[in-house]
Amino acid sequence: MTEDTIAAVATALGEGSIAVVRVSGPEAIERVAPLFKSRVDLRDADTHTVNYGWIRDPRDGTIIDEVLVTVMKGPRSFTAEDVVEISTHGGIVAVQAVLELILRTGVRMAEPGEFTKRAFLNGRIDLAQAEAVIDLIRSKSNRAFQVARKQAEGALSKKIVPLRQQLIELLAHVEVNIDYPEHDVAEMTSSAITGTCLDVKSTVEQLLKTAAEGKILREGIVTAIVGRPNAGKSSLLNALAQENKAIVTDIPGTTRDIVEESVSLSGIPLRLLDTAGIRETSDVVERIGVERSRGALLDADLILLVLNHHEKLHEDERKLLDELVDRPVIIVVNKMDLEGHLELDEIEARFRKDRIVSISAKEGTGIDRLEKAVSQLFFGGSIESGDLTYVSNARHIALLHQTIQTLTDAIEAANSGIPIDLIQIDLARAWELLGEIVGDSVGESLLDQIFSQFCLGK
Amino acid sequence: MTEDTIAAVATALGEGSIAVVRVSGPEAIERVAPLFKSRVDLRDADTHTVNYGWIRDPRDGTIIDEVLVTVMKGPRSFTAEDVVEISTHGGIVAVQAVLELILRTGVRMAEPGEFTKRAFLNGRIDLAQAEAVIDLIRSKSNRAFQVARKQAEGALSKKIVPLRQQLIELLAHVEVNIDYPEHDVAEMTSSAITGTCLDVKSTVEQLLKTAAEGKILREGIVTAIVGRPNAGKSSLLNALAQENKAIVTDIPGTTRDIVEESVSLSGIPLRLLDTAGIRETSDVVERIGVERSRGALLDADLILLVLNHHEKLHEDERKLLDELVDRPVIIVVNKMDLEGHLELDEIEARFRKDRIVSISAKEGTGIDRLEKAVSQLFFGGSIESGDLTYVSNARHIALLHQTIQTLTDAIEAANSGIPIDLIQIDLARAWELLGEIVGDSVGESLLDQIFSQFCLGK
Repeated sequence: MTEDTIAAVATALGEGSIAVVRVSGPEAIERVAPLFKSRVDLRDADTHTVNYGWIRDPRDGTIIDEVLVTVMKGPRSFTAEDVVEISTHGGIVAVQAVLELILRTGVRMAEPGEFTKRAFLNGRIDLAQAEAVIDLIRSKSNRAFQVARKQAEGALSKKIVPLRQQLIELLAHVEVNIDYPEHDVAEMTSSAITGTCLDVKSTVEQLLKTAAEGKILREGIVTAIVGRPNAGKSSLLNALAQENKAIVTDIPGTTRDIVEESVSLSGIPLRLLDTAGIRETSDVVERIGVERSRGALLDADLILLVLNHHEKLHEDERKLLDELVDRPVIIVVNKMDLEGHLELDEIEARFRKDRIVSISAKEGTGIDRLEKAVSQLFFGGSIESGDLTYVSNARHIALLHQTIQTLTDAIEAANSGIPIDLIQIDLARAWELLGEIVGDSVGESLLDQIFSQFCLGK
Repeated sequence: MTEDTIAAVATALGEGSIAVVRVSGPEAIERVAPLFKSRVDLRDADTHTVNYGWIRDPRDGTIIDEVLVTVMKGPRSFTAEDVVEISTHGGIVAVQAVLELILRTGVRMAEPGEFTKRAFLNGRIDLAQAEAVIDLIRSKSNRAFQVARKQAEGALSKKIVPLRQQLIELLAHVEVNIDYPEHDVAEMTSSAITGTCLDVKSTVEQLLKTAAEGKILREGIVTAIVGRPNAGKSSLLNALAQENKAIVTDIPGTTRDIVEESVSLSGIPLRLLDTAGIRETSDVVERIGVERSRGALLDADLILLVLNHHEKLHEDERKLLDELVDRPVIIVVNKMDLEGHLELDEIEARFRKDRIVSISAKEGTGIDRLEKAVSQLFFGGSIESGDLTYVSNARHIALLHQTIQTLTDAIEAANSGIPIDLIQIDLARAWELLGEIVGDSVGESLLDQIFSQFCLGK
């Protein structure tokens, strides 16, 4: 149990109706109570109640703000400690002034991620769950959010814990075999070791298979939309945006401010590259800028090449088709509402059918087929399936790879007849590596590194 | 009482630990309850309690997010209606998904300011108080916030209401005098009318005197820091910023994101102009850009001219001193920690002593004197005094000016022996004008206009 009490702003900063200061620790209630002018003394407030009043500077009686103060007594709180949340007027002044006043009582400013760290240190959640909390906040699509939420609820941990159990049981047998060779314990044969190791390794490999998808969900597919100006690139952009009307327009300015140039295609986040430069390749003066854009195009995870169904292929487009033939490209044939002049045969001869999608951005038709094509390209069409236990965290991916390597070493050693006490080291290491995912046997410095990626107030 | 139930995101959008969806209206609890999976049925929850659970899509049982739901039953709520606040994970995905789900139950998306508008329409606050709510959110300094908070609590209204009372009593007498000239009521003499009118007018004028200060507190003093490159302009900027360490650095990026180039000097917000261009006046090529900067300099409310105590006056600086002699300028003599070569006598001969401040930006000394000089220049040194009833809202200022004009007309009319029933029109108009400040006799279109300036969720 940690000893001191910490505080930070828990809501995003900016113009909003309300903002919240979160205080956590053994003295949370005791420290805030004297600042709170109300009918209610916070020390007498029931847990999980909201109390109306004012935050007042006790030095001169100045009212800082009209507030609602929520008391949540540990362990029924985010950190499992006593938590006080003060809901102030929005903007930055009130919440800062209240925070400063609280810090002046000897409460310490929380480090980034420290509330979540405490939830971990107090045993309310494991490390993989804690790490998912930051993914929750940063997620840019519903699906990425749901993956993070599942992990925050322990979905990944539930896969890891039984594997560790298998390894610890194997280790127990090995230990007995080493320590008491005279005991009547079934001798550890190499086949017993390899059996368990292969079993665990196979499950870890299955988990890692989801890593590519997990990473995409977490970070988004870097997508370049290319095409000649009249092909309908902007209309496609608008059509994609309209598909997500609820998310992009409910709150004006949201998308621009936070996830600029991002859209979500049936739950898959696309990070759209501005490829304005590329369409001007004929302009000699801007060659350097164009080359830079081409570089970005080369790095894209997905290219949407928009062609105009109403016109014959332009020489520029033939060149692009040549360049993109081996890339993760989807050919978007736009303006299907108009008469067709495009040489579709020529394109179909060179690209797989499921990579060619006909749409009318103007009429909004075919966007569903485009979604399917993207989903097919990145998730083998299976993104709609149920299991959301994606491994997406780079730290977890690295640990799982190391685990596989260590298990492979153990299997090879067992097969080569190497002494059991040497193999035991590998087995213990594999157990530890998996333990680092859920936060067992993790050092303070690693914890600091993990939680420092968090935003303040979490 | 309004009939429908509305919802919006109440916290600022961006990366934060938590975000809040606010729902208000007669069906707030009824609509959210079926979405809330918990030990508690929201319909049975006590008012002002926080309830832990999950928001679940009732169509397919999908869990949207782990949440805390606060129930506040009317009239003990911000809108005086039943209010439900759902605290979700931060970021944009969870809060948007929860909002969408709620909107799907038939709850309407709130218009900007609609929660506050309901608080006004339900009689919990008057219009001046409601208007202060937006100032609370937008305020950029502690002092501006406190002025807005006072107004939100009704400080301005408390000044307006007695004036209207005086006018209505006068009107009552006038009416009686007109309707029942045969009655034994003391006849309204012109002196009685002018007496009350002068009285009310004088109070309104006093209120308007605070308008300049109020506007400054609300919008900030547009401040240009000028000086030669080696004078210490940047050091002064840093010193000013450090004075406000708590506000500018507690949360990295705050200032840049929200109040770019703003600092608060003992509660007075300064909006600093980038005058980098001005120091390069000798560069002929950039003359146009420099002229533009000079234009900005001419518009500034305050100019801080930074001189280097360690060096003799440069010709450029002499020119600047000439230009600025009649402007709201403070001469900041920097580098007092070094030996003095500056011709201080020459400056003191031309500028008032209280406009010259010696500092050492490097050692952080003298900043307090600079604060005093600014305060002196804009508030006659009285900003520290207690009365925070500043009139800062342009609508209020315009109405107060119109009131004064109308009262002046009434006084002149009374003095000219114009019939009382004509004067009565002016008196009634003055009463109405003051009423518009507190929201009496205000039309729907004006209300829409006022509340549309609000951010969503308030």
